[in-house]
Amino acid sequence: VETPTPLTIGFLGGTGPQGRGLGLRMAQAGHRVLLGSRDAQRAAAVVEELAEVVGGLAGDVLGVGNEQACADADVVFVVLPYDGQAELLEQVAGHCAGKVVVNCVNALAFDKRGAVPVAVEAGSAAEECAALLPGARVSSAFHDISAVRLQRLEEPVEADVLICGDDDEANQLVVHLAGQIDGMRGVLAGPLRLSATIEAFTAVLIGVNRRYKTHASVRVVGV
Amino acid sequence: VETPTPLTIGFLGGTGPQGRGLGLRMAQAGHRVLLGSRDAQRAAAVVEELAEVVGGLAGDVLGVGNEQACADADVVFVVLPYDGQAELLEQVAGHCAGKVVVNCVNALAFDKRGAVPVAVEAGSAAEECAALLPGARVSSAFHDISAVRLQRLEEPVEADVLICGDDDEANQLVVHLAGQIDGMRGVLAGPLRLSATIEAFTAVLIGVNRRYKTHASVRVVGV
Repeated sequence: VETPTPLTIGFLGGTGPQGRGLGLRMAQAGHRVLLGSRDAQRAAAVVEELAEVVGGLAGDVLGVGNEQACADADVVFVVLPYDGQAELLEQVAGHCAGKVVVNCVNALAFDKRGAVPVAVEAGSAAEECAALLPGARVSSAFHDISAVRLQRLEEPVEADVLICGDDDEANQLVVHLAGQIDGMRGVLAGPLRLSATIEAFTAVLIGVNRRYKTHASVRVVGV
Repeated sequence: VETPTPLTIGFLGGTGPQGRGLGLRMAQAGHRVLLGSRDAQRAAAVVEELAEVVGGLAGDVLGVGNEQACADADVVFVVLPYDGQAELLEQVAGHCAGKVVVNCVNALAFDKRGAVPVAVEAGSAAEECAALLPGARVSSAFHDISAVRLQRLEEPVEADVLICGDDDEANQLVVHLAGQIDGMRGVLAGPLRLSATIEAFTAVLIGVNRRYKTHASVRVVGV
């Protein structure tokens, strides 16, 4: 995997909180960012709204349709709710072959007691993503990073990002990108089959957040 | 839950690395510790062996049979391999009713690629434990704490212990006990149904350990 700077990074479902947060941080790091949405006009409106917030970054962040966010990108981030993943990935699969695809989707459901993992036939949202995108180089990461903290651009994001995947070079690129966010560090956890647990762990942090009224994150001690 | 000091804490399967580590740390904190084993004589021999390592703690740590470890304890720690849990818990259920039972068991399997969660009909090792011990006040904790680090008694254990369970007082007692270990802190994550994920997360840390040749632990930032 080449790591030219700037990369063009496309975000599928990028107008949601996670996409806005990661997109703005990647723009801060000097990358060109395409925030994709089902509706390209809506994406453009969101970016216009963000422009007021982020000032100087505006020129490096574009709102586009999801398909263009893939087609024009060097690297694709999947930042969808799990419910929408399968349908959208089938539409854009042709644009993802050979590219690093960073899957940030959590297969979770919510009820009165909090978040709880949902069963996924492929094993996890990330493994489903890999199955739906033939030839894509899928790495699973950024699952439990607070979108609230990501969007506070003036503050560091004190968090270690657990990364798993079966393509070492793709994982290394994600380590690199995570390290470009102030305060953040990428930590390699192992094969893609660990993604179910890493996705589910977000439910644990959501539980901690409920209990302590916070936006918790994880640091790995000993690495 | 009363918290007299010292408590008598019984460890089911306590002669293994996790039982030795947690047992010695609880003895350091001033509690009376019963390390249980299938074979009471073997347990006594292990404690004699540990006595050379730990010197002054020897009088507060006893090796006993698993049944006695439950019967004589105020609080019971389950530190078994998952494979042995169901059989043993059925044998000791009569001694656990009304007591706080801290389940530290991970439902994991191992192969060449590392650790991987195994499916448990009850949902998790801790939920299975709760089902097998009617009237016990089960809290799930200490799943991913390195036994190596626990046994280095002269060093702090830099780790946050994720705790889940449906009995608030039991959980609070575990927070208290975790906080008595130098460097450690208990963090409440939510209901017992989160235990599957907390147990499985140990597989992620094992993956990190393989990758970085370390004994990793977790800190929760923001609590």
